[in-house]
Amino acid sequence: MSFIQYEQNCDFPIQNLPYGVFSTTENPQHRIGVAIGDQVLDLSVVKELFHGPHLTECRDVFDQPVLNGLMALGPPVWKEARQTLQRILSADEGVLRDNVELRAKAFVPQSSAIMHLPVKIGDYTDFYSSIHHATNVGTMFRGKENALMPNWKHLPVGYHGRASSVVISGTPIRRPCGQTRADESQPPVFGPCKLMDFELEMAFFTGPGNNLSEAIPISKAQDHIFGMVLMNDWSARDIQKWEYVPLGPFLGKNMGTSISPWVVTMEALAAFTIPNHPQDPKPLPYLQHEDNFNFDINLAAAISAEGTNGPAMVSRTNFKYMYWTMKQQLAHHTVTGCNMNPGDLLASGTISGQTDDSLGSMLELCWKGTREVDLGSGIKRKFLKDGDEVVITGYCQGDGYRVGFGSCTGKVLPAVNPFQ
Amino acid sequence: MSFIQYEQNCDFPIQNLPYGVFSTTENPQHRIGVAIGDQVLDLSVVKELFHGPHLTECRDVFDQPVLNGLMALGPPVWKEARQTLQRILSADEGVLRDNVELRAKAFVPQSSAIMHLPVKIGDYTDFYSSIHHATNVGTMFRGKENALMPNWKHLPVGYHGRASSVVISGTPIRRPCGQTRADESQPPVFGPCKLMDFELEMAFFTGPGNNLSEAIPISKAQDHIFGMVLMNDWSARDIQKWEYVPLGPFLGKNMGTSISPWVVTMEALAAFTIPNHPQDPKPLPYLQHEDNFNFDINLAAAISAEGTNGPAMVSRTNFKYMYWTMKQQLAHHTVTGCNMNPGDLLASGTISGQTDDSLGSMLELCWKGTREVDLGSGIKRKFLKDGDEVVITGYCQGDGYRVGFGSCTGKVLPAVNPFQ
Ligand SMILES: [Ca+2]
Ligand SMILES: [Ca+2]
Ligand SMILES: [Mg+2]
Ligand SMILES: [Mg+2]
Ligand code: NI
Repeated sequence: MSFIQYEQNCDFPIQNLPYGVFSTTENPQHRIGVAIGDQVLDLSVVKELFHGPHLTECRDVFDQPVLNGLMALGPPVWKEARQTLQRILSADEGVLRDNVELRAKAFVPQSSAIMHLPVKIGDYTDFYSSIHHATNVGTMFRGKENALMPNWKHLPVGYHGRASSVVISGTPIRRPCGQTRADESQPPVFGPCKLMDFELEMAFFTGPGNNLSEAIPISKAQDHIFGMVLMNDWSARDIQKWEYVPLGPFLGKNMGTSISPWVVTMEALAAFTIPNHPQDPKPLPYLQHEDNFNFDINLAAAISAEGTNGPAMVSRTNFKYMYWTMKQQLAHHTVTGCNMNPGDLLASGTISGQTDDSLGSMLELCWKGTREVDLGSGIKRKFLKDGDEVVITGYCQGDGYRVGFGSCTGKVLPAVNPFQ
Repeated sequence: MSFIQYEQNCDFPIQNLPYGVFSTTENPQHRIGVAIGDQVLDLSVVKELFHGPHLTECRDVFDQPVLNGLMALGPPVWKEARQTLQRILSADEGVLRDNVELRAKAFVPQSSAIMHLPVKIGDYTDFYSSIHHATNVGTMFRGKENALMPNWKHLPVGYHGRASSVVISGTPIRRPCGQTRADESQPPVFGPCKLMDFELEMAFFTGPGNNLSEAIPISKAQDHIFGMVLMNDWSARDIQKWEYVPLGPFLGKNMGTSISPWVVTMEALAAFTIPNHPQDPKPLPYLQHEDNFNFDINLAAAISAEGTNGPAMVSRTNFKYMYWTMKQQLAHHTVTGCNMNPGDLLASGTISGQTDDSLGSMLELCWKGTREVDLGSGIKRKFLKDGDEVVITGYCQGDGYRVGFGSCTGKVLPAVNPFQ
């Protein structure tokens, strides 16, 4: 129980305490905050309260404009920070509760906080680890028999994404213009993307890094995973389709990748650990771990379109549908000696369930354009139209409380021909 | 003519003046230098000599430990910096030449300079723009008729690489361990890469960036290209082959990507401009430019192996074999609104000529393992062995002088099983 009041279904109870980076109109300085109820606790104001054995020495990480410094410090420091936060926000502890002057400076209503990218992202990797999504896409393009490529169950397939175009939730996404070839009997054409899509994903930020030529063994992978966010990996399907052979998706993904502002720590998620997805065949030893590192996170995607009565839920899915765990992804990513830096971003890939209402992209929801998605009020969609706002949400349901992620939103703006 | 003496075939005459970042044993501070003859001019020492209209205001870019600040400033400033350097290094100008005390502080022998990564690289992209290389690889894996994918002549195919693993020339490269499946009738196995390769490439660094959702039109692309380096995009062919479908190369490239330390500016290269490669079909308008932006850069790869008498030249090729120009690469990369930051790295892809002795990778030189490459002294290779050092060099031949790139080197270290 915190002295900050909130409802039972609040995303940000004292069990959560996610980190983010915010500013206010009055103080444009980017600073680190923690969400509690509908408030943000400004850690740059209360950093002196962190006087445990680890943070006394390095509490200047709370004075930085990004979370990379905190992420670099590793689990013992993260744990101490969380314990301190839970103590100073507790209803039983007076240090903040009873200090009217400090409280006035330390808390900012979330409604007044302008959220920023919480991390300086060095590298961003996108995996492809949801088996239903990979099967769906494979079935569409190669048929049911060859849906999964031969490597898919042996390693977490992934690729490098563009780090510069990762943006914070709320940033509008401009429909890109690019080269496509819908009609293979004709030359390719240049113009606005006609198959604009979202991808419902989650992503994790890395903690301490590893040196080039060294690996993070799966037994230690957990120490290198700081926390998670929601992600929308916007995709221009027609651009992607024409460009992606043989080296993978490129410009079809670079118009923006949105992430939610609050980084929910693995400590907050620990209470929602569930059994890993069964894996057959058994992966190679470097990818094996016995402990559970899958999470029960309810996910949803809604679309707010002009002419509808507010957001229409188009998908309800769950992080638990991931075939590969984050530990496996990280162990695989580093096994050839690839170096991670604190704050690198590793995404799940589109997360789809098995049913028609649990699919994580319009490509799957409209099954490659063969059916329509009902948004209510007579409005239907195959792919996204200009003005559509996609809202991704996620939360873990505890007993009488939720650990939530807030939301990851973005509105599609009409294309602007860059040469006119 | 400079008051610093050098031979006719020196890579770093006064016509070149490439930028790099160095330190010395006595002064471990990373600082910006310019190569001249066998010396480095320390710009942090002579920055007060830059007092033109632009640099008077922003000469603190010469006090930074990376070149990103200078790269961000754009062509008018780059031009002024070059003019100042050519003046103060000229044999006719006394300001440095005659100041014994300043000269003693400002010049460091290249043999005493420890070179560092010259740029903080935000994102690294690798293209695939050499038509002979793409045709060779396509022929090997898909046959002569389907060698080039349908998109290849319509757009410069590329993919995102890993920025964190770009290293400076001279850094040893550890042979990676990873997952491969040489025998498709058997499960995949884990172990040291058996098909270790180099890729002879060049790469350019971007200058001023663009905002997300905006494009750099091809008519302005030149203003966003700062200069070039040599690159070795080390590749683990067996790891790459098993992992790369359908999302492209990933871990097979992440054990390291080496670049040469001296960034040769586009102004130094301008004298070596030659006609662009013919393009048929004509690309879409956003990829068209009339002016020449191809460059006559002699490139070579040599291998020093144990038991040989020094480096054996295995390939002589030329940057001019590029089908797509750097302007086309940059215009394409940003056309969907992808944002560049100063100091992003965009690589050519492996550069191969048409003849058997001008191929830019062992994969092509040994033609997928079907022939051997002679290193002399009875030593032959298909792929790289432990201890092999790959030396990539490059230069433009002027009339009585060279504009050279120095070299990009790296030695293959034996694999270390990360789990033993
Ligand atoms: Ca994705
Ligand atoms: Ca390459
Ligand atoms: Mg994206
Ligand atoms: Mg590489
Ligand atoms: Ni200026």
